[in-house]
Amino acid sequence: MAFKTISAKAAAALDKELMSSGAFSIDQLMELAGLSVSQAIYRVHPPNNGRRILVACGPGNNGGDGLVAARHLSHYGYQPTVYYPKRSKNELYQRLSKQLEDLNIPFTEDFPAALGSADHVVDAIFGFSFSGEVREPFPAVIKALEETKVPVTSVDAPSSWSIEDGPPEFGVGCNFHPAVLVSLTAPKPLVRHFKGRHFIGGRFVAPSIAAKYNFDVPRYEGIDQVVEVDTSEEKL
Amino acid sequence: MAFKTISAKAAAALDKELMSSGAFSIDQLMELAGLSVSQAIYRVHPPNNGRRILVACGPGNNGGDGLVAARHLSHYGYQPTVYYPKRSKNELYQRLSKQLEDLNIPFTEDFPAALGSADHVVDAIFGFSFSGEVREPFPAVIKALEETKVPVTSVDAPSSWSIEDGPPEFGVGCNFHPAVLVSLTAPKPLVRHFKGRHFIGGRFVAPSIAAKYNFDVPRYEGIDQVVEVDTSEEKL
Repeated sequence: MAFKTISAKAAAALDKELMSSGAFSIDQLMELAGLSVSQAIYRVHPPNNGRRILVACGPGNNGGDGLVAARHLSHYGYQPTVYYPKRSKNELYQRLSKQLEDLNIPFTEDFPAALGSADHVVDAIFGFSFSGEVREPFPAVIKALEETKVPVTSVDAPSSWSIEDGPPEFGVGCNFHPAVLVSLTAPKPLVRHFKGRHFIGGRFVAPSIAAKYNFDVPRYEGIDQVVEVDTSEEKL
Repeated sequence: MAFKTISAKAAAALDKELMSSGAFSIDQLMELAGLSVSQAIYRVHPPNNGRRILVACGPGNNGGDGLVAARHLSHYGYQPTVYYPKRSKNELYQRLSKQLEDLNIPFTEDFPAALGSADHVVDAIFGFSFSGEVREPFPAVIKALEETKVPVTSVDAPSSWSIEDGPPEFGVGCNFHPAVLVSLTAPKPLVRHFKGRHFIGGRFVAPSIAAKYNFDVPRYEGIDQVVEVDTSEEKL
């Protein structure tokens, strides 16, 4: 079965609805989203493959998902390092950062050096609200992710990609092809251009809400918060 | 290894610390606590054993953990029914209830009837802040749980038990011996009197905080949010 995708506009409306009539707090949703990401990492890169996970966080909600994932990864026995150059002043993000500090998770400002000693990277820089140009200091980060041999897992979208149209034709990100993508709640149209392992996470959407936004709640197994889907099927 | 226990007073102080210097919101902690409970239920009572789970929720935080667990159980494919006679007016609990309504999870006011058609019961009535008398309408509920053959999983404490001293010597709850107990963050002294399967959940405590409160963070496996511990060891 081909999974339906939701546009950036629909994803924004869905988030808003989950937090209004859906009655979820952003704390809850971000906790479950970040948990999904951490479970996908455990699946594609179990601790025995190397524990050093570099988590690159952007300034918005995608970055928040990364902060939550880093905490869970630490509890799983990984050694995460967080790159979070544009810290939000929002109290939620400050709290998520404090939770990491209490676990002695290091924050780095030197992305290339951290990348050089990482076994896996989480790209939580930009999510479905990204459009336009990649702002400083992220162009060099995306460039490094394009060139590295370290496998990358992107959260919701490969950062720099257009949510609707996929990788940019030229410039920053045109050669960025992460190994893994974790789509939150539902895949975005960009998945048509994605060739790696694809997971869906965010096991909190009521079927009635999914129906309203015209996507399918995937068949998660057991207690899993993520499910791997066959990317090739989405291209049908 | 015998697990150290924390007193009711220490558990209250720990909760307060997690939400102040620990920088967690109650939404986050309750989400992870309820998720732990749902995973323990899946372990002791997989869906093939019967999907009808009756979740009895008290008026406070223990009830909130039950509401969260009911939501996750629904996503896992169970058919939870919620008994929640003393609804909190606190907006968090109202939101957690709305999330259940959106999944078409029924709320019942007839506990005996719901118990009669349940495959498993979650006792999320009273937690570590319980002391003194069991208030209405819960004495009849505890009495029903004492007498039923349906297995019961208690959250943090078998409701009606003294957190320090275990089951009351006589009266309501003196014969209440649930099959399963999920201790949140750390076991309470009452576990010395508990004979069933014992889990610890709440995989969010930093080792430095655990050390301060003189308990051990248990060795969770993989991505599990609960770990089963050998109850007999705690009696050493």
